[in-house]
Amino acid sequence: MQKVAVFPGSFDPFTIGHENIVLRSLDLFDQVIVAIGIHSTKKPLLKIEARVEMVNWVFKSYEQVSADSFKGLTVDYCRKVKATHMLRGIRTSADFEYERAIAQINKKMLPTVESIFLLTSPEHTPINSTIIRDIIRNGGDASQFLPSGIDIKEYL
Amino acid sequence: MQKVAVFPGSFDPFTIGHENIVLRSLDLFDQVIVAIGIHSTKKPLLKIEARVEMVNWVFKSYEQVSADSFKGLTVDYCRKVKATHMLRGIRTSADFEYERAIAQINKKMLPTVESIFLLTSPEHTPINSTIIRDIIRNGGDASQFLPSGIDIKEYL
Amino acid sequence: MQKVAVFPGSFDPFTIGHENIVLRSLDLFDQVIVAIGIHSTKKPLLKIEARVEMVNWVFKSYEQVSADSFKGLTVDYCRKVKATHMLRGIRTSADFEYERAIAQINKKMLPTVESIFLLTSPEHTPINSTIIRDIIRNGGDASQFLPSGIDIKEYL
Amino acid sequence: MQKVAVFPGSFDPFTIGHENIVLRSLDLFDQVIVAIGIHSTKKPLLKIEARVEMVNWVFKSYEQVSADSFKGLTVDYCRKVKATHMLRGIRTSADFEYERAIAQINKKMLPTVESIFLLTSPEHTPINSTIIRDIIRNGGDASQFLPSGIDIKEYL
Amino acid sequence: MQKVAVFPGSFDPFTIGHENIVLRSLDLFDQVIVAIGIHSTKKPLLKIEARVEMVNWVFKSYEQVSADSFKGLTVDYCRKVKATHMLRGIRTSADFEYERAIAQINKKMLPTVESIFLLTSPEHTPINSTIIRDIIRNGGDASQFLPSGIDIKEYL
Amino acid sequence: MQKVAVFPGSFDPFTIGHENIVLRSLDLFDQVIVAIGIHSTKKPLLKIEARVEMVNWVFKSYEQVSADSFKGLTVDYCRKVKATHMLRGIRTSADFEYERAIAQINKKMLPTVESIFLLTSPEHTPINSTIIRDIIRNGGDASQFLPSGIDIKEYL
Repeated sequence: MQKVAVFPGSFDPFTIGHENIVLRSLDLFDQVIVAIGIHSTKKPLLKIEARVEMVNWVFKSYEQVSADSFKGLTVDYCRKVKATHMLRGIRTSADFEYERAIAQINKKMLPTVESIFLLTSPEHTPINSTIIRDIIRNGGDASQFLPSGIDIKEYL
Repeated sequence: MQKVAVFPGSFDPFTIGHENIVLRSLDLFDQVIVAIGIHSTKKPLLKIEARVEMVNWVFKSYEQVSADSFKGLTVDYCRKVKATHMLRGIRTSADFEYERAIAQINKKMLPTVESIFLLTSPEHTPINSTIIRDIIRNGGDASQFLPSGIDIKEYL
Repeated sequence: MQKVAVFPGSFDPFTIGHENIVLRSLDLFDQVIVAIGIHSTKKPLLKIEARVEMVNWVFKSYEQVSADSFKGLTVDYCRKVKATHMLRGIRTSADFEYERAIAQINKKMLPTVESIFLLTSPEHTPINSTIIRDIIRNGGDASQFLPSGIDIKEYL
Repeated sequence: MQKVAVFPGSFDPFTIGHENIVLRSLDLFDQVIVAIGIHSTKKPLLKIEARVEMVNWVFKSYEQVSADSFKGLTVDYCRKVKATHMLRGIRTSADFEYERAIAQINKKMLPTVESIFLLTSPEHTPINSTIIRDIIRNGGDASQFLPSGIDIKEYL
Repeated sequence: MQKVAVFPGSFDPFTIGHENIVLRSLDLFDQVIVAIGIHSTKKPLLKIEARVEMVNWVFKSYEQVSADSFKGLTVDYCRKVKATHMLRGIRTSADFEYERAIAQINKKMLPTVESIFLLTSPEHTPINSTIIRDIIRNGGDASQFLPSGIDIKEYL
Repeated sequence: MQKVAVFPGSFDPFTIGHENIVLRSLDLFDQVIVAIGIHSTKKPLLKIEARVEMVNWVFKSYEQVSADSFKGLTVDYCRKVKATHMLRGIRTSADFEYERAIAQINKKMLPTVESIFLLTSPEHTPINSTIIRDIIRNGGDASQFLPSGIDIKEYL
């Protein structure tokens, strides 16, 4: 059986913490799809296309990893790409409560797909996209929180 | 003394978890009012009237239970209906922190009304209205998370 | 139906926070039994008999309230005294996680008894028996954390 | 070395809990600046100018304390006023997770400024600006949650 | 590369929740070792040998799964059996904080072994070995919380 | 006014995380006393004298910092050394709940001493004495979690 993991999220932007989760999961899966959800309501920092492009650039040397975007429910996207697992990183206990609810509901709706969690590395724990987005919007230098080699201005 | 409990919330939509809380509280109170708060700012899935109608249908065999809507502060509504208690369910420790602040402030503003808490059943813990609303908005089937016999399409 | 609440705990010692929970629950129940569990393993500050005596003294003007001690499972004690409810106070989110597990397991073992929770008042939130016991053992003055009129030395 | 603390926040409105944090920090710092962040996206209850005026009035007898407003990143404001410390109050464990992420990111961006935390007094724990704002918007009396002598109507 | 997961714990006793975690992980690993840690200080309910026997019986039809006991550090045991992953279940946010510290320290001591987490199913969330042990010690019937077919008396 | 901070704890052993908290607090206080509490009940890894010696060695170049041991209540020790503040580090939200209770009780018993909190650096968050003690007891190498230059064997 091919093991296909969907790593769903907004990734606005994709941080060094997200990159770390993907890299640490490569042993477990034949394929990891970074699946960027499209939400019509939120006003994003980066356009969906820019986010897909950025993730593809980060993993350009990894055939196993690809980026995609999707509309609608994550479980429907998982069905479409024949995912066997969902992958998520957990940073804090606040994250945990939210992730648990989502994972348990997803399991009820699509019992064949198991959610797998990695915990972020200590140095990545404070890095979340909301804070990073705020730094970028206010003209701060967020490069230490982004994957190596990323110049966020190219994607804005 | 008549014991009148107000069960305040947005209930957008009213889930199987909410129903369970009401049913488990019936021994304690002479009357339970499911009180649906009107918030002008949030864009709801269901209209207030649809939510009142849905709750009334769910408890159609229970004379003790009724649904109502209200504008403004919950404590003012409690005064109006001569409530003796407020009823709330707690699902997670994230819920808990929020519920505690609200209950303690309400107690300061209306000391005669005591807030009583039930903890959701394990199988209902992941079910919260935000997630269910998201499923329905994306065309998913949320019927297993709603009270038995509810067809959400009739209320949209 | 008579409503009989069991308020189980170690109460070593019974604090002003415990007293407050009992007083705020009196509207809901015909009878409240403060049920002091006997644990052979823990080395207590106060003997079981002293704890029973102390709680009875605190509620000497309340016919509704009585103190008792019990060995074994709380659900077995509830069966014995024909309890309809269990009463518990929650102080913090750490408490919450523990109380939720206990309440859900109790519900599985004795579905007819519902667990009801009150949240401690803000000024009582930091008061837990472990800290108070530590103060007393080290010769500190804990009287502000105990029910009014209690001289702990009489019970040691 | 002059010790200059920036106490950043929205303070919409400044509550009795915020006042308490400032007063308890005065021993530690030569100067405390209550720094009110301007967010273009949120619709506030009080205008920035009214919030600055209100905080200045509260601390009119304290030369050490002043109010200011700022746009952009807190670390940039700290640089501008030559702050040596940031001051924050923590109420709950939900607050804690958020504050930790912010403090750790700020430390990465401006290592010379240390974040110092005080925990709110028990009686102020439930008081947060969101709840107080909701009370005021709905015509409730929030004066017990505001610094003594404040008539919120003068600032609306 | 063979994927070998160590599932470390006390398992005193092994519950239906532990069984569920193992079963849901079988897709990910070639081999899962339930590794029962020997702690000289704690007074267990079940002897180490009884716990190993019980786990082996539960998974008698699964060649992939075996039980073992070990003394000392989990990372040393992982080295010995050439583990590629550690497997853990998380039930609550209190669990989470503890698991995160352990996993991050283990990663520092043995960077080649990645810790993978599954979240317990909602119905298993309240089941922890401490509570189950307490039920059994007090003569209660814990069979609904144990793997199907287990008669705990045979292992005591 | 001299600012004297007591940093109370068991420090069994004193970790790199504790060292970091002390160093980051030096700007705030004229004197920092690492105050090692003696608990007759717990069986320690290191003797009290060894812990005092170790902390004194770590801060041998800092005149501001000293180590001491004490029996009894922390507030009594603070009175004895004329402390103006207590200093504590917080690692996780589980820590937070405990620290909040202790700090609020201490404030009730000794209102003149304010508790000040620093949050541990991300890389030190998983390091707690219980885990480190366990590593050392099992013959593991814990040197990366201890202050630079410490050979724990010299203190055992």
